[in-house]
Amino acid sequence: MNRIPFAEVQHTLAGILHKLGFAPDRARTCARLFAETTCDGVYTHGINRFPRFVGTIHNGCVDPRAQAEATARLGALERWDGRKGPGNLNALSAMDRAITLGREHGVGCVTMGNTNHWMRGGTYGWQAAQAGMIGICWTNTMPNLPPWGGAERVVGNNPLVIAVPRAGGPVVLDMAMSQFSYGTLESYRKRGEMLPVDGGFDTDGNLTRDPAAIEKSWRPLPIGYWKGSGLAVVLDMAAAMMALGRATHQIAPDPLREAGVSQMFLTLNPAAFGTAAEAEKIADGVVASLHKSQPAAPSGKVRYPGEQTLRIREENLRLGLPVEPAVWAEILAFQR
Amino acid sequence: MNRIPFAEVQHTLAGILHKLGFAPDRARTCARLFAETTCDGVYTHGINRFPRFVGTIHNGCVDPRAQAEATARLGALERWDGRKGPGNLNALSAMDRAITLGREHGVGCVTMGNTNHWMRGGTYGWQAAQAGMIGICWTNTMPNLPPWGGAERVVGNNPLVIAVPRAGGPVVLDMAMSQFSYGTLESYRKRGEMLPVDGGFDTDGNLTRDPAAIEKSWRPLPIGYWKGSGLAVVLDMAAAMMALGRATHQIAPDPLREAGVSQMFLTLNPAAFGTAAEAEKIADGVVASLHKSQPAAPSGKVRYPGEQTLRIREENLRLGLPVEPAVWAEILAFQR
Repeated sequence: MNRIPFAEVQHTLAGILHKLGFAPDRARTCARLFAETTCDGVYTHGINRFPRFVGTIHNGCVDPRAQAEATARLGALERWDGRKGPGNLNALSAMDRAITLGREHGVGCVTMGNTNHWMRGGTYGWQAAQAGMIGICWTNTMPNLPPWGGAERVVGNNPLVIAVPRAGGPVVLDMAMSQFSYGTLESYRKRGEMLPVDGGFDTDGNLTRDPAAIEKSWRPLPIGYWKGSGLAVVLDMAAAMMALGRATHQIAPDPLREAGVSQMFLTLNPAAFGTAAEAEKIADGVVASLHKSQPAAPSGKVRYPGEQTLRIREENLRLGLPVEPAVWAEILAFQR
Repeated sequence: MNRIPFAEVQHTLAGILHKLGFAPDRARTCARLFAETTCDGVYTHGINRFPRFVGTIHNGCVDPRAQAEATARLGALERWDGRKGPGNLNALSAMDRAITLGREHGVGCVTMGNTNHWMRGGTYGWQAAQAGMIGICWTNTMPNLPPWGGAERVVGNNPLVIAVPRAGGPVVLDMAMSQFSYGTLESYRKRGEMLPVDGGFDTDGNLTRDPAAIEKSWRPLPIGYWKGSGLAVVLDMAAAMMALGRATHQIAPDPLREAGVSQMFLTLNPAAFGTAAEAEKIADGVVASLHKSQPAAPSGKVRYPGEQTLRIREENLRLGLPVEPAVWAEILAFQR
């Protein structure tokens, strides 16, 4: 594992994106989002994901020149067309607009169809929280998860993000509806480890912790069994219906062709009535109640969602972003 | 199990509520909500829950005369004070107002503090969906669930409801953040059955399907382990912050004293741009994709959340509401 300074990573990725057709400022922003994702410790969706992202530009799924735009407005609600643009830039502008709507109307909602993979969902949660908003957003995905009672992957793992602003550190939940991603199953298998809890079914239909057995059956578990399966279904419906976009079953089941997804960006403004300070105290009270509660293991500690992020971010900014040499070599080759 | 006609159940409960201080129309509505909950097959929160509800009126947690009221308004957002009124009537009026706000602003939000247990959360999802809205609502609860990594019950099971309107039958997800409620654990134990999946930890800290072992440890599992634990935390924060109400750690850990909870009622209007019909087609498409997908068991069927409700409702309306004789006797005694 190499360590490369944040600025160098961003500069390198931005140069490649510019060559691929991104306007200079959009190349810089898109590169920043990839670098920040790795910086925050979400290694699956940062630098490591960049080669696949370039692949979706090469194959035409992502149009680097397209910008999302509003197509309909009513009060606090806007419907946007992602126009097949880069998913992370589209999502950033959608949440930016939802923040403005939330300031004006107390609550804001931007729905977007025809967009692309937003990479790390937590990005837009942090964005909302840093603007003082409670941010709620979700995306549908290609079909990659069997619903409860089903053998076939027809629902998405549809990540849901809920972020709460807090001066002491935002609370950011970023969770997919599958208990473990295929990437996580692969990592466990390569390390020769069992999963910490049941992660899916084997080909005989038994629950198992064996990652290879789940990769073989293609039957990972939704979180909470029937519950996460149901949540994935309603999130898909709500995003596609409001955006008039594609639902999961209409999205190509291929990571390189997963395109035209539907997303939802909601903001709630805790400062709407001049009560941001009181709201903050409530958030701090919840955090304190977790921190002072008894851990399950004597050396353990109960943490809030996203609690580790600021520490990891600080470390990666100080030491440089951790980068797999092979991945970095692949990225540098795009410069040629 | 006896069967009692819906109208007789409603009339009986309404009479008792009137005697307890409810205005006549509020007594009828409150009684209807209890009867409808049993009618829809949510037996834990319908008639069977009525004696405990009466208990919370007797002990002063629920004030039958108090009506929730708006205390602050900005655009599409309103903050309400539940004034310790009956939780189900309060929630009904909050969602009613959120529906109106959603019609006007495309999205609507009512937050309510100082309210009481809303009984069946799905009630307000059905309410939104029947008004043509996507309804999203949640409540915090007393601390009844250890967070992930914790041994102590300091988070709530904070039910989340998401409902999608659809002429062919609304899709309504109503899920608590615990994998199994204490009521469900008790039912399995009394039947001498193991849970279908791990439901918590035993006193040695091992995952178990044994309901008695979980009742003993007081460590039921959040759905999706760390994921549902995080979701419970952010839902609690968001509701309490927006309502300036109590967070879970401030709510008495006693089912008879659980009072002053915080709730959130959100609506999204799929008809905002005159596109209700297109949105409906999208919902139907998702339902069709589930129905035609391959079931895990040869005789199985993949269902959407809430799919069974209309059938159960029809049956219970036709045959009468199923009522435990002992519970009904307890209720009739309130008439004296």
